[in-house]
Amino acid sequence: MSRLLLNCDMGESFGSWTMGLDAEVMPFIDCANIACGFHAGDPGIMRATVALAVARGVLIGAHPAYPDLAGFGRRSMACSNDEIRDLLHYQIGALDGICRTQGTQVAYVKPHGALYNDMMADPLKLRTVIAAVAAYDRSLPLMLMATADNRAAQALGDEYGLTLWFEAFADRAYDAAGRLLSRRLPGAVHHDPAQIVEQALRLARGEALVACDGSALWLRAHTLCVHGDNQGSVAAVRQIRQALDAQAVT
Amino acid sequence: MSRLLLNCDMGESFGSWTMGLDAEVMPFIDCANIACGFHAGDPGIMRATVALAVARGVLIGAHPAYPDLAGFGRRSMACSNDEIRDLLHYQIGALDGICRTQGTQVAYVKPHGALYNDMMADPLKLRTVIAAVAAYDRSLPLMLMATADNRAAQALGDEYGLTLWFEAFADRAYDAAGRLLSRRLPGAVHHDPAQIVEQALRLARGEALVACDGSALWLRAHTLCVHGDNQGSVAAVRQIRQALDAQAVT
Amino acid sequence: MSRLLLNCDMGESFGSWTMGLDAEVMPFIDCANIACGFHAGDPGIMRATVALAVARGVLIGAHPAYPDLAGFGRRSMACSNDEIRDLLHYQIGALDGICRTQGTQVAYVKPHGALYNDMMADPLKLRTVIAAVAAYDRSLPLMLMATADNRAAQALGDEYGLTLWFEAFADRAYDAAGRLLSRRLPGAVHHDPAQIVEQALRLARGEALVACDGSALWLRAHTLCVHGDNQGSVAAVRQIRQALDAQAVT
Amino acid sequence: MSRLLLNCDMGESFGSWTMGLDAEVMPFIDCANIACGFHAGDPGIMRATVALAVARGVLIGAHPAYPDLAGFGRRSMACSNDEIRDLLHYQIGALDGICRTQGTQVAYVKPHGALYNDMMADPLKLRTVIAAVAAYDRSLPLMLMATADNRAAQALGDEYGLTLWFEAFADRAYDAAGRLLSRRLPGAVHHDPAQIVEQALRLARGEALVACDGSALWLRAHTLCVHGDNQGSVAAVRQIRQALDAQAVT
Repeated sequence: MSRLLLNCDMGESFGSWTMGLDAEVMPFIDCANIACGFHAGDPGIMRATVALAVARGVLIGAHPAYPDLAGFGRRSMACSNDEIRDLLHYQIGALDGICRTQGTQVAYVKPHGALYNDMMADPLKLRTVIAAVAAYDRSLPLMLMATADNRAAQALGDEYGLTLWFEAFADRAYDAAGRLLSRRLPGAVHHDPAQIVEQALRLARGEALVACDGSALWLRAHTLCVHGDNQGSVAAVRQIRQALDAQAVT
Repeated sequence: MSRLLLNCDMGESFGSWTMGLDAEVMPFIDCANIACGFHAGDPGIMRATVALAVARGVLIGAHPAYPDLAGFGRRSMACSNDEIRDLLHYQIGALDGICRTQGTQVAYVKPHGALYNDMMADPLKLRTVIAAVAAYDRSLPLMLMATADNRAAQALGDEYGLTLWFEAFADRAYDAAGRLLSRRLPGAVHHDPAQIVEQALRLARGEALVACDGSALWLRAHTLCVHGDNQGSVAAVRQIRQALDAQAVT
Repeated sequence: MSRLLLNCDMGESFGSWTMGLDAEVMPFIDCANIACGFHAGDPGIMRATVALAVARGVLIGAHPAYPDLAGFGRRSMACSNDEIRDLLHYQIGALDGICRTQGTQVAYVKPHGALYNDMMADPLKLRTVIAAVAAYDRSLPLMLMATADNRAAQALGDEYGLTLWFEAFADRAYDAAGRLLSRRLPGAVHHDPAQIVEQALRLARGEALVACDGSALWLRAHTLCVHGDNQGSVAAVRQIRQALDAQAVT
Repeated sequence: MSRLLLNCDMGESFGSWTMGLDAEVMPFIDCANIACGFHAGDPGIMRATVALAVARGVLIGAHPAYPDLAGFGRRSMACSNDEIRDLLHYQIGALDGICRTQGTQVAYVKPHGALYNDMMADPLKLRTVIAAVAAYDRSLPLMLMATADNRAAQALGDEYGLTLWFEAFADRAYDAAGRLLSRRLPGAVHHDPAQIVEQALRLARGEALVACDGSALWLRAHTLCVHGDNQGSVAAVRQIRQALDAQAVT
């Protein structure tokens, strides 16, 4: 069993505003998705977040977004495919510039918010993102959502020679097709730490989850998306980390 | 005599707004100072401007600025030295990201507008800029203003192992200390093409200029700043180019 | 026959970037749709544009947009209805603040670009815009697109007690439902000045246009959208103005 | 003794970022300085903050700033006097637009951060601000810093017919000239609640403070600047409110 990486959004403060317990959660994760200034983050925050990641040996991912600070990159924007390509290159490059001065570099890419959702919903946008990352650096994996059937995405990745890292969630319920249940539905978000750890372990072991209709759901996932928003979520990440480490030792 | 490089601000359009005759002036210059999104330029314009430069074999310079689109980077801002360092790394990196996808890279750095002026007026800011460029890539020259006495700046560059490219102007009058005469003063800007070409040739040959008080002014300049704002300035650049080339042949 | 008002987008420069021949076209129009800083315009440009309008006795309209300078407000954004309401109030208020210091005030509202299109495509968004303008000032007319059947929009306007000013185009071809033909289709844009003037006069007289399928199209229009982008479009506006004035005299 | 108003910066959240305990502190203050979108605040946050103020009967002040979200308006910018005038009108108007839809209006103006400091340091900038507020609405008081000698400022206010509200601080030490001691100096900020309340009462009664050199300092103050950043500062505001109310009853 290959190791299940824990990835977490980081560096989402901006100017005088603080968001996320980056320093607290950094010790427990493998991959830091660092905001690149378009939905959050500014050059100083990016530098500080890279420094935190370097100190903990955490991989640095570019977390590019639509240009929408006021909407935190969560509002879909009708950007053309060329515009998406260019804003990816700009943001990945900006983070790489800050990494470079600290002896490191961007190690993967995970689009943020509405850009991530649009990429998952529209094969042409997924192609645009894959092509853009490949054009920047074919050795950078792209993180995207694991679903019950990853084959279409995988074929696109293969076409461009790009590694895909599929991500799953330990604290969210899935439907039978492997899509996240909408947060507006009851039971969409797990709050019981035991249930969250159990789901993380099943994903790590390659075991099936139970979808919301009771069916078995196999998700092929390389990484688990975790959260550092508050003390509760940091505690959950610590528990997941410990459970995964304990199992790895076995 | 080493070659006097012609540098020109480029890529200063933004979104739907156009500025500068980039395509017209590109054939006559050596170095394109490309805006990086903080005072002008957006990812799409940066990509197109890099493509123009690549097609003409023109060196690509990062042209970073204070974050002030509405003021075109011409209003001084009380940024801390750390903030200046970080915004330099962000902007140089962003342009490098876009260069990378076109098989090229940033070849030098020239701060823009108020950041350039502040750097020339305050030795601590000049040190900050020099240290920041050196931290990014010690092989990147920094463009800055030639004055009658470049020694203090040169000593700072030497301290960080950074190459400095001093720039002069063919279309501006100087005072005896090698400072540009304020545009508000009569005679500050040369409009006669013959006079502009003559000043360019003197600089290229390492001959003295005549300062506004009639004294001889020796400026050690590696590069000449030219302009592509309108048809008149493009014509002047073409004349300077032809005069420099004719002399080089001799 | 009531007078057909000529409306034109104005104040779409930004910072150091210029767009539109505002001073040239202002003498020929009745209504200036002034950008409010979200897609174009900044406080200084807004002030100067208001001054131009005041000097010519032209009505001042707020031209609010999605917050997207780089995209010139032309990219649809998934703003919530509350967000749309608030950004309308902010932008109308900002322009009103600048009008107030020149002894005038906003006289109507015309959403810009993607916000305009979204409002025309989605009745819930149209309701949001109508409710927002009515909450700001029920005496401000809202400009929107005339179609073959304005009744649904008119019913919404009546519900909120808001006056609607339907606008038509003299330089665009329509389909039988009164929708503008896509600019990508041949014949979508009229270039013959005589044809443009003819279409303006038909609209002013309340006569039918000929839709692209040859059918008669009656559009009830209070205002005609004209353009000041370049010398050609300014010349067209002058011709329309003269033709309308000549007819009014008769 | 006229009543000493408590004023507090409010609405300084932005998009998804939260700052300040606005709802907790609102019950204890008289005047809410509401951010207008240039250093903090967005249209939705402005609407919500106005609603909070209206619910508590708190006066609404426009809190305009330099256009610098990333720097929270704390970095001085070399804006021209015309630019300062225009950005004031834009921001006051935007807030007024949002007030208007809630049946209220801007009641005074207090510049924010670096704009406030620049106004206090440069008489020409103070004149610009006073003239701009007077041009917007001569009935709006301008809040500015009380010093040992308010006469020069008062003369400027009188020249434009504008009311000035001088503000003082209960939690800051003053030098003999009535200037705030720099936060970098020891003793610059009072932390003892009893001392803070005592200073507030002295200001309310028109009694002298003790300057840092031991001399008596008379400050003529109409309003006291308080803070809602955290639970500690909210508790301090509550104590000041109670002490002022108790004294007023006597």
